[in-house]
Amino acid sequence: MTLKRKGSKENNLRFIPLGGVGEIGKNMYVIEYEDNMIVIDAGLKFADQSMPGIDFIVPDISYLEKNREKVIGIILTHGHEDHIGGLTFVLPRLNVPLYGTPLTLGMVSQKFNDELPSYSPILNEIHAGETVEIGPFKVRFMSVTHSIPDGVGISIETPLGRILHSGDFKFDSNPIDNKLTDYAGFAEEGKKGILLLLSDSTNAVKAGFTPSESVIGSTLERLFRLYKSRRIIISAFASNLHRVQQVINTAAHFNRKVAFLGRSMMRNTELAASLGYLDIDKRTIIPSENIDRIPDNQLVIMTTGSQGEPFSGLVLMSRGEHRAVKLGDHDVVLLLASAIPGNEKLVNNTINRLFDIGCDVIYEEHEKVHVSGHASAEELKMMLNIIKPKYFVPIHGESRHLFRHTELASETGVPNKNIFVLQNGDVLTFDKGSKAQKKGRINTGSIMVSGNSFEQVEPTVVKERLELGEEGVVIVSATLSKKGTLIAKPLIITRGFLFQDEQDDFIEEGIILLDKQFKDILKKSDFDINSINKRVKMSIREHIRKRSQMSPVILPIIRVED
Amino acid sequence: MTLKRKGSKENNLRFIPLGGVGEIGKNMYVIEYEDNMIVIDAGLKFADQSMPGIDFIVPDISYLEKNREKVIGIILTHGHEDHIGGLTFVLPRLNVPLYGTPLTLGMVSQKFNDELPSYSPILNEIHAGETVEIGPFKVRFMSVTHSIPDGVGISIETPLGRILHSGDFKFDSNPIDNKLTDYAGFAEEGKKGILLLLSDSTNAVKAGFTPSESVIGSTLERLFRLYKSRRIIISAFASNLHRVQQVINTAAHFNRKVAFLGRSMMRNTELAASLGYLDIDKRTIIPSENIDRIPDNQLVIMTTGSQGEPFSGLVLMSRGEHRAVKLGDHDVVLLLASAIPGNEKLVNNTINRLFDIGCDVIYEEHEKVHVSGHASAEELKMMLNIIKPKYFVPIHGESRHLFRHTELASETGVPNKNIFVLQNGDVLTFDKGSKAQKKGRINTGSIMVSGNSFEQVEPTVVKERLELGEEGVVIVSATLSKKGTLIAKPLIITRGFLFQDEQDDFIEEGIILLDKQFKDILKKSDFDINSINKRVKMSIREHIRKRSQMSPVILPIIRVED
Repeated sequence: MTLKRKGSKENNLRFIPLGGVGEIGKNMYVIEYEDNMIVIDAGLKFADQSMPGIDFIVPDISYLEKNREKVIGIILTHGHEDHIGGLTFVLPRLNVPLYGTPLTLGMVSQKFNDELPSYSPILNEIHAGETVEIGPFKVRFMSVTHSIPDGVGISIETPLGRILHSGDFKFDSNPIDNKLTDYAGFAEEGKKGILLLLSDSTNAVKAGFTPSESVIGSTLERLFRLYKSRRIIISAFASNLHRVQQVINTAAHFNRKVAFLGRSMMRNTELAASLGYLDIDKRTIIPSENIDRIPDNQLVIMTTGSQGEPFSGLVLMSRGEHRAVKLGDHDVVLLLASAIPGNEKLVNNTINRLFDIGCDVIYEEHEKVHVSGHASAEELKMMLNIIKPKYFVPIHGESRHLFRHTELASETGVPNKNIFVLQNGDVLTFDKGSKAQKKGRINTGSIMVSGNSFEQVEPTVVKERLELGEEGVVIVSATLSKKGTLIAKPLIITRGFLFQDEQDDFIEEGIILLDKQFKDILKKSDFDINSINKRVKMSIREHIRKRSQMSPVILPIIRVED
Repeated sequence: MTLKRKGSKENNLRFIPLGGVGEIGKNMYVIEYEDNMIVIDAGLKFADQSMPGIDFIVPDISYLEKNREKVIGIILTHGHEDHIGGLTFVLPRLNVPLYGTPLTLGMVSQKFNDELPSYSPILNEIHAGETVEIGPFKVRFMSVTHSIPDGVGISIETPLGRILHSGDFKFDSNPIDNKLTDYAGFAEEGKKGILLLLSDSTNAVKAGFTPSESVIGSTLERLFRLYKSRRIIISAFASNLHRVQQVINTAAHFNRKVAFLGRSMMRNTELAASLGYLDIDKRTIIPSENIDRIPDNQLVIMTTGSQGEPFSGLVLMSRGEHRAVKLGDHDVVLLLASAIPGNEKLVNNTINRLFDIGCDVIYEEHEKVHVSGHASAEELKMMLNIIKPKYFVPIHGESRHLFRHTELASETGVPNKNIFVLQNGDVLTFDKGSKAQKKGRINTGSIMVSGNSFEQVEPTVVKERLELGEEGVVIVSATLSKKGTLIAKPLIITRGFLFQDEQDDFIEEGIILLDKQFKDILKKSDFDINSINKRVKMSIREHIRKRSQMSPVILPIIRVED
């Protein structure tokens, strides 16, 4: 506490990641000067199977909630879920204005309409190239190329120096929308002098340069030519509008119609088209109801499911469960995406099912069907060289990415003592002389959220679920009279432990055992329900051990009459 | 049934995969002629998180159990778990002799000693190059290069023609143990004429040739030179003795001592050394107790954990929980392995933790630290061209691998009508004219096995576990008198549903609700415990819906006094 008060008195500048370092996902960074906090992004992370019943994870923002009156806004770098996905959870708790480009804000609005229509976010539209004053901060937005249009990097001028956040970026020399990363803008900021660079570490471990998104167009052209007589089904991220644009272009070139299927694909393309981010000749697009009227060799079906998501378009098709599209050996499926780590099995299972039903499947093991939206090592060094920051903090990466990025920074001449690998919650403080120091931590962490209802689920509850799920549950019930006689005999119920046919003996013997035990216990004039519960649990544990090495959760429910 | 009887009367030859097609894992193939069945391999598959509490999966062998007197033996191609791991489950049920090379049988013996010492398998040692008669079959064994020594391909001469099983193989031109794949042997068999080729599809989707295992040696030499002043920790598959040998060689060359840590690493190297599969100068190896006496620059620690297995050597070290080795910034960790699909997160988390504690980590994103043990597309075509089979069945692969392998076969001239993609349980029958036909199916599938106890777990039990694990359980208990009054008031207990602090209102209101409901129900003179259970379940479901979108398992336990 002393530290913090002192810091604040001395007009220090502070940088605090709430999420996004040591992980890929739930990006959220706080920049703090005097009584003003500005937040960059509010993302989510998707849960994996180690968190049953959890849909996504957002940063713990209790630090911001405690300092609510200081938070002056959230700046959004782009419209990906790991940057805007936490807003429906975060924003109602903070009630601060948002700043973002038109497409990003369009996606945010859509999100609130869908998930939380009762809440109307305050939207401040900004454009790449502009500089906006937000409290004591002067914020310049510079366009970056990425796997979604309208992304920005941000230079934040503070009274103690400039902090530059790269955004999620690559240096694509042939961007589909012709919007290059703003080399000049970044260079100008670099020239002015950057106190602290925060830069995207996702691909720091990848050598060389990330290929241009435009290589996908070449692949598409070759594949459309090769499979000219067959129906083509394409799956890609719905937010990767550059890729959608290339599919549309190639389809038009080969005189094919395009039908969009899958909720997010339909909504994203609609939004993007309405905002002018997709260049579509209306004659190319047909509604999904009409796909059966178009000959195979004149049709492209573009849908969701490139990550093997259980209820997505492509997955339903691969299971023969899609109501509008039945796939078979006249179909070629192009998966224009790479499996995100953790999704490999879902993706591979989908591909396997597609082969099983006779489709030809083109995916990343064969063809250049995916390029990353993130800068590789050489591009990251280019960014470091353009900016020449005094201090450097790698962000947006797991530890292995962050550490590799520090090596790159070091190679470009940033002194090792000026490079900080932070953990979520670490506070990097700049004093009046602009000298940086890791100084204390704030409380942060992960909030697990369930379903569309945004219910927060406590870690202990998830732990209980994992225990129940591991080897099931055995419930023992009995009811005693006040005098200590058995009113209802012991009953044993299991779930997820033994199969119906296997458990008859186990239950029968268990009941005899408990019956005897109860009679022993209840002989004593004075009985205590807690110690009975404990003894029942122990003897059931013992009884299980005799037949099995499993250890299910045991729940004794011993009642006493009212 | 008619089909089967007819087939057997006509002296047909049958090939039936019990496991290993449409999947990578639990390889088990049956070759059947008249009243003789020979089995190739008996592997396991490791369970993933979609099967909680399950450790591994073996093929359903009920078909073999029903025909027990016909099964004359199990031939093992090599010592990997997906080929021998099911034996402790399968063999006691069949009691048939095993055939395998010395190392393979050594690993089998070790397995039985560890897991099922009461059972003594009948072991028939064979060697690459030999031909052995097993019932009506003449079986020739040919050496293959793979990621474990002493692997074989098998040519089985039957009265209706030869079936050739490639084994798990690659064409390594510089094998570490100097044992090449037996080109001549395979070519001789091809010349004699092969009716059916069964070939390893693992890498059918990989273009070109798989690099030689010896490239790892070059990488090691470069890295040992680069990190000459630091302690080196190496993790690899314990069964990849070629790789272990290369570490030993490089260490000796650089005057470093090697200590083996981790149970499977210690046991495998001991077994391999005793059987002569490792060439070790005893002065190079030191016991793990002595590692603290050796200077960092003279030590290599070789351990398990290359797949991020929770209790393996490297993972314990990365968590700071290894009793003998504490890692820090003086250490370089080499991960000489690739993450098996599904293990990516475990592996990446381990790498991240190692970076966090200051280690340098060299892994597959940077360096040539792994090569596959399986043939790539060009090698598979070479095998097809050497064998020139009449019929071809791709094995050892998921659908995407099998279908790609059929394309390769087709390219080498096998007619498409002679290529069969089978599913586990499909029966491929050859009539007297050696004409093949997919004809019927036998019952097979997956047996889920829990823990070291080899307990078989039924699918419904696993389904119940997944349900419990997803959103927890709510248990409602009450006891009624025979007259239909409440003896013990309703009680609600939850696990894995709501947090302690959140559930007070939920439980309190639920009890009031139930209390009222019971009074209503019990007014009726005639009450039925089943319908009461149903009504209680419904009203609790309703009660939950009011506060949450979750749907836990609901278990009403309504008792009536005895």
